[in-house]
Amino acid sequence: MGSLHNQKPEIKTGFPGSIIKPLDPEEFRRQGHLVIDFLADYYNNVDKYPVRSQVEPGYLKKRLPESAPYDAEPIEEILRDVQNDIVPGITHWQSPNYFAYFPSSGSIAGFLGEMLSTGFNVVGFNWMSSPAATELESIVMDWLGKMLELPSEFLFSGGGGGVLQGTTCEAILCTVVAARDRVLRRIGRENINKLVVYGSDQTHSALQKAAQIAGINPGNFRAVETSRSSEFGLTAEAFRAQIESDLKLGLVPLFLCATIGTTSSTAVDPLAPLCAVAKEFNVWVHVDAAYAGSACILPEYRHYLDGVENADSFSFNAHKWFLTTLDCCCLWVKDPSALVKALSTYPEYLRNKASDAKSVIDYKDWQITLSRRFRSMKLWLVLRSYGVANLRKFLRSHVKMAKNFEGLIAMDKRFEVVVPRNFATVCFRISPIEIGGNRQIVSKEEAANNLNAKLLETINESGKIYMTHAVIGGVYVMRFAVGASLTENRHVILAWKVVQEHANALLNSSS
Amino acid sequence: MGSLHNQKPEIKTGFPGSIIKPLDPEEFRRQGHLVIDFLADYYNNVDKYPVRSQVEPGYLKKRLPESAPYDAEPIEEILRDVQNDIVPGITHWQSPNYFAYFPSSGSIAGFLGEMLSTGFNVVGFNWMSSPAATELESIVMDWLGKMLELPSEFLFSGGGGGVLQGTTCEAILCTVVAARDRVLRRIGRENINKLVVYGSDQTHSALQKAAQIAGINPGNFRAVETSRSSEFGLTAEAFRAQIESDLKLGLVPLFLCATIGTTSSTAVDPLAPLCAVAKEFNVWVHVDAAYAGSACILPEYRHYLDGVENADSFSFNAHKWFLTTLDCCCLWVKDPSALVKALSTYPEYLRNKASDAKSVIDYKDWQITLSRRFRSMKLWLVLRSYGVANLRKFLRSHVKMAKNFEGLIAMDKRFEVVVPRNFATVCFRISPIEIGGNRQIVSKEEAANNLNAKLLETINESGKIYMTHAVIGGVYVMRFAVGASLTENRHVILAWKVVQEHANALLNSSS
Repeated sequence: MGSLHNQKPEIKTGFPGSIIKPLDPEEFRRQGHLVIDFLADYYNNVDKYPVRSQVEPGYLKKRLPESAPYDAEPIEEILRDVQNDIVPGITHWQSPNYFAYFPSSGSIAGFLGEMLSTGFNVVGFNWMSSPAATELESIVMDWLGKMLELPSEFLFSGGGGGVLQGTTCEAILCTVVAARDRVLRRIGRENINKLVVYGSDQTHSALQKAAQIAGINPGNFRAVETSRSSEFGLTAEAFRAQIESDLKLGLVPLFLCATIGTTSSTAVDPLAPLCAVAKEFNVWVHVDAAYAGSACILPEYRHYLDGVENADSFSFNAHKWFLTTLDCCCLWVKDPSALVKALSTYPEYLRNKASDAKSVIDYKDWQITLSRRFRSMKLWLVLRSYGVANLRKFLRSHVKMAKNFEGLIAMDKRFEVVVPRNFATVCFRISPIEIGGNRQIVSKEEAANNLNAKLLETINESGKIYMTHAVIGGVYVMRFAVGASLTENRHVILAWKVVQEHANALLNSSS
Repeated sequence: MGSLHNQKPEIKTGFPGSIIKPLDPEEFRRQGHLVIDFLADYYNNVDKYPVRSQVEPGYLKKRLPESAPYDAEPIEEILRDVQNDIVPGITHWQSPNYFAYFPSSGSIAGFLGEMLSTGFNVVGFNWMSSPAATELESIVMDWLGKMLELPSEFLFSGGGGGVLQGTTCEAILCTVVAARDRVLRRIGRENINKLVVYGSDQTHSALQKAAQIAGINPGNFRAVETSRSSEFGLTAEAFRAQIESDLKLGLVPLFLCATIGTTSSTAVDPLAPLCAVAKEFNVWVHVDAAYAGSACILPEYRHYLDGVENADSFSFNAHKWFLTTLDCCCLWVKDPSALVKALSTYPEYLRNKASDAKSVIDYKDWQITLSRRFRSMKLWLVLRSYGVANLRKFLRSHVKMAKNFEGLIAMDKRFEVVVPRNFATVCFRISPIEIGGNRQIVSKEEAANNLNAKLLETINESGKIYMTHAVIGGVYVMRFAVGASLTENRHVILAWKVVQEHANALLNSSS
């Protein structure tokens, strides 16, 4: 008898014997159930992990082999390695103690929708390649448009239409390219270097990157200055002044990205006056509500979208605060033909009767890529599994928790909320103070910035909660963004205790 | 007592009582198991569905309500609707009888990897946001690069590196933009309209679209003609002639996309001579092996990549024929800094110690979007679950099935293989013949094209198998692409019977 030591464990890989069956249904069932349990256990324990990963750069290279294995390995062993090697390197966006960036809100329905879409694994570039993928997308985009009370011109039922992109970066790039070509068809390609793209100094970097990819002259990107007086929203006056100065230079105003809920401080650009100026100068307005768009299904928040009727396109990320899991950016346009003219290709190998007859939507012409996943499945599941009522409840619960956090801050005079809270994100800091050890080499504000940066880093290093920062009008703030699906009020209360404890330690050590 | 009629069924939505728990672990477990079983049953039955969906445009609108539901609906009801309303509108890419376009090969490992990635739901834009997502990606891209025997300059270990994009369209767009900016930094932005992008008339439409998005003058896109004499590969001579003619016009050659395995006929562009010409004129060469790249892990196919050592970038789609499920495009570049210079943004709210120290990779600067899914998870699971040995076996089994199909064609003198088979895709047709009822109003070739188009449509309408077409050198061909994960040789034999039966019926009716 051979020694146990030399016996290889039996490997179940879905390849019984010499037949290769990578999609064997019963093996799929067995392994699928294993992973569901693995993830359910993960959610049960996720509050116990350090929220921000504590590994050092290069940690994983030390743990994994240099090459892919020659032979198959069993799923049980792989899952052990996921737990031991991968989980420590994960920053736990699903932790109830996660308050960084913006949330990446997962949900059961979003997860199941992704499973179904991955399971069917269709490549829905055109209608024909899987009619349900196209039609479900058009239907749920109209559903969602109605929930947001978007003007009918943005819905299919009103001559516009919606499409699911991966991220806002793609939505902006597609609309910049559509706007670019609409203008260049009129003024000639040779004028591409005259086109100007506008945002504010608070606009997401996605705009600058999209303009850059689309070949807009980097010298013609305008990040118009905002200030505290307008709560860091872009004013119509500043926008107009910038346009007029560009026109004097012989440039051609092209595109404005207005934001509902900026990344740094959830500031809101005033749509109505901005769109009025844009209309005057024939500028395409895209409304980026990546984070805050979700909240606009609440009647009490809908007013932020007033004026959108004069915009050309609107997008928000359902993967941020609308439970669909990454990635799912909802984009509506009033004039789909502008997208199609800029992005359409129709090679022979994709020709088919339905497309020839123009009786269907081929979403490949509304986006950057040809291949596309069946993303509407998860959005459909989220809308049905929770319904409008529960989605509103979910969003309101986060706003309420953010308000509670504000209330806690207000009770500690060392701290202040730096800009008014619009949604469920609170920007706060330790107020500038005379610190004992401070020899006034730096200004009070600069000292406060350094102090808050130090506080944030010690908090994040503790692993108990995770927040990120922004600098708004020169002020370094900690951002407390409520929105993780597992977060409850008790986590918010605990988070505040963590902040206070670290502030105590820091202020005591520096006094 | 109230009537049963008025009682609403108890709805389990993961929102027990008034508490909103969209990620309740035990409800996740319950619903997750339901969907695993749903999909396992789907795979058990997928061969029984019509492969190409038989619905008419607009079918789904008639079945679904006009608005999202106000109240939550139970998962059991939603799954019933998926079965009744969605499945009929799906073209079953996972069917063993699917031979259309290129495969979208799903697998248990790919699916599980997607589950884990969706379950963790991290947004891995930079290293800090989830170190494991970045590090695993770099590691598996080096693993895979070694499996393909890519020159070390493409690997991290050799100064280059790999990144996972969604699709080849993105890979090409990113490299076009990197190449564009590298040249414009030298010759000035004002010359953007002089840049020329090259492919052949067989190159995927992704190239034209990428050039278009990147702001390349549409008049400067060259689809260089190929012919039967070079088996529809782009010759170095034709490429050189086109460059020389462009230089005479004062234009600036920028970018060549060479293809290993074209979409229409899996033709191969000869890399070595093309790269030699490109080098002479300082042209960026991207190698698009979207479909056939997978096969190059087979020693007997690796020679197709000979010459890649002089290219600048290389990509293939692991979601096509490498079991990862959509989407997963593997891109390697020799000079990551060219990507980073063109695509990097670094706003304050993303600043962190690791990025500041430049001690890590921030993949956001290697791609179009900021947010990115944890795609390396599924690639890692595929590589480990199957191992190099089984992956080779899997690919070879498809090549063998395609050979068998060729053998069946050869035994029926009415048919012919139109271009030599390189991988697992066979391009064939009914040969041009004198048809009784044909009054010679159209040429023999044109009649053959019409006949084959008609044959293909009747085959696809039957729902028994699904193939698509291409037109190569004026010849209409049916493409038989083996690669669906569930396909076995018996399905290939049956497919050939379906082709023969429909040909019999068609030829008899027209004689």
